[in-house]
Amino acid sequence: MSAFDLEAYLTERRALVDAALARLLPSEDTPPPTVHRAMRYSVMAGGKRLRPILVIAGAEAVGAAPAVVMPTACALELIHTYSLIHDDLPAMDDDDYRRGRLTNHKVFGDAMAILAGDALLTLAFKLVAENAALVKDARVICDVVAEIADAAGTGGMVAGQVVDIESEGKAIPPETLEYIHTHKTAALLRASLSVGVRLGGGDAAALAAIGDAGQSLGLAFQIVDDILDVEGASADLGKTAGKDAAAGKPTYPALFGLEASRRLASDCVTRAIDGLRGAGLAGQLPAIARWVVGRTN
Amino acid sequence: MSAFDLEAYLTERRALVDAALARLLPSEDTPPPTVHRAMRYSVMAGGKRLRPILVIAGAEAVGAAPAVVMPTACALELIHTYSLIHDDLPAMDDDDYRRGRLTNHKVFGDAMAILAGDALLTLAFKLVAENAALVKDARVICDVVAEIADAAGTGGMVAGQVVDIESEGKAIPPETLEYIHTHKTAALLRASLSVGVRLGGGDAAALAAIGDAGQSLGLAFQIVDDILDVEGASADLGKTAGKDAAAGKPTYPALFGLEASRRLASDCVTRAIDGLRGAGLAGQLPAIARWVVGRTN
Repeated sequence: MSAFDLEAYLTERRALVDAALARLLPSEDTPPPTVHRAMRYSVMAGGKRLRPILVIAGAEAVGAAPAVVMPTACALELIHTYSLIHDDLPAMDDDDYRRGRLTNHKVFGDAMAILAGDALLTLAFKLVAENAALVKDARVICDVVAEIADAAGTGGMVAGQVVDIESEGKAIPPETLEYIHTHKTAALLRASLSVGVRLGGGDAAALAAIGDAGQSLGLAFQIVDDILDVEGASADLGKTAGKDAAAGKPTYPALFGLEASRRLASDCVTRAIDGLRGAGLAGQLPAIARWVVGRTN
Repeated sequence: MSAFDLEAYLTERRALVDAALARLLPSEDTPPPTVHRAMRYSVMAGGKRLRPILVIAGAEAVGAAPAVVMPTACALELIHTYSLIHDDLPAMDDDDYRRGRLTNHKVFGDAMAILAGDALLTLAFKLVAENAALVKDARVICDVVAEIADAAGTGGMVAGQVVDIESEGKAIPPETLEYIHTHKTAALLRASLSVGVRLGGGDAAALAAIGDAGQSLGLAFQIVDDILDVEGASADLGKTAGKDAAAGKPTYPALFGLEASRRLASDCVTRAIDGLRGAGLAGQLPAIARWVVGRTN
């Protein structure tokens, strides 16, 4: 096994994604400028670009190049960003900081933040449609649109946020917490991997394997997020640490303790890696999976 | 020319759309129930179903049946409804009544209204993707996704809402008012007609003609909306009459007077009908176009 430099891989892929995002987002002086400034403010604030990287890594696992999936990779980042902008609103989680800077509505006001989120979600689907120019069979694009919509809507991310909001300050059973995490976070991470494989030309067996692995990886990611919220410093996280507990939000450490939470996350990743290896889909994915649980921010 | 019963036509098409919407929206007891109740509350509140009817009429103008475009017709109604829910929020226009009942956030709270809007926009694109099963060439679906995203995003509806909000209480020139109306309302009406023709198998010439006609018709519709806001009673409109003036919103009657506004709307419709006839695309469209300016609510 040759030594794989994960840091270099992530840095390179992130640079590709950042360049594509800068190109695909309307410029700040395209009318009406305010909303385009608001969109770029949050998208270009950085972040791990985990979803785009999973799209790319999924495509690479079946032998396709990053360029083939780049519009869709960017679309997943736009959907993630829209969800953060709306979640941060005073009517929702009421957060002042995100990725180390003021949240969108603190800079642009609530109305513009709502509209910027709406516009990012809308643009995301346009980018997926434009990915049709890069694949042979346009039916695949329709499948990708449907899969992303499922993962982002009330079968996925929105469902998780709804139950999260409705659970605040309440004692909830572990099943409800798992429901929140698998829907709010894991569904979109799973879809990211899956649509990468789909656009890269993966067959039904590859799609089934990647779906299961994506689900486990997504849950692990969110458990680690919970752990970092307890342990991390605000500066590392770029958002307010301890915020979940303060808000009476259910978390894995609160329900199971830190030790058991770490074990759960680690088990999820092992399961994901075993599944990927079994389907012959390893590539860079096991290393990425281990990074997901090993990360410190 | 045989007598065409427009009322019967509209009633039948509306019933088809209402049945499809009821079938395509997740049921109220699908978890998480709150957001599905909120989505259905606003979508099933009635309304003219103008956008779905334009999709259907566009398809019929090139010889296709309503069933071929129904998922996309419903998608346009979901996008329209999401925009109303978000526009009514306290952070935006702060409206209490819509279509004769309390606005979404007054019943479900701001957080749920934001999420219900997000979910409707997301579901809309899923429905368009599912329309792939009803057409031969999936590339057409990708074009439809892109066209709808353009019309709904910062090249269309969102742009109109941004400039509308930024113009409140200000004296604006006629060009800015036209910008607001063509983007906030006309863009999505134009796209409705256009994607109907596209999905129905219309050629490039038909698409060009329908695009121009849709644009004129869309502007006429919004001018009539402005006129009705001045003239109409709240009961007919199902929303608060005189609200635009009270909010210091720019309108056609405020800028040009009632008489000139009526003439402008009528000119737009004549232009639309002439364009449709010139392209051999008449069908039910001229009657629908006349209804758009003749309506009283």
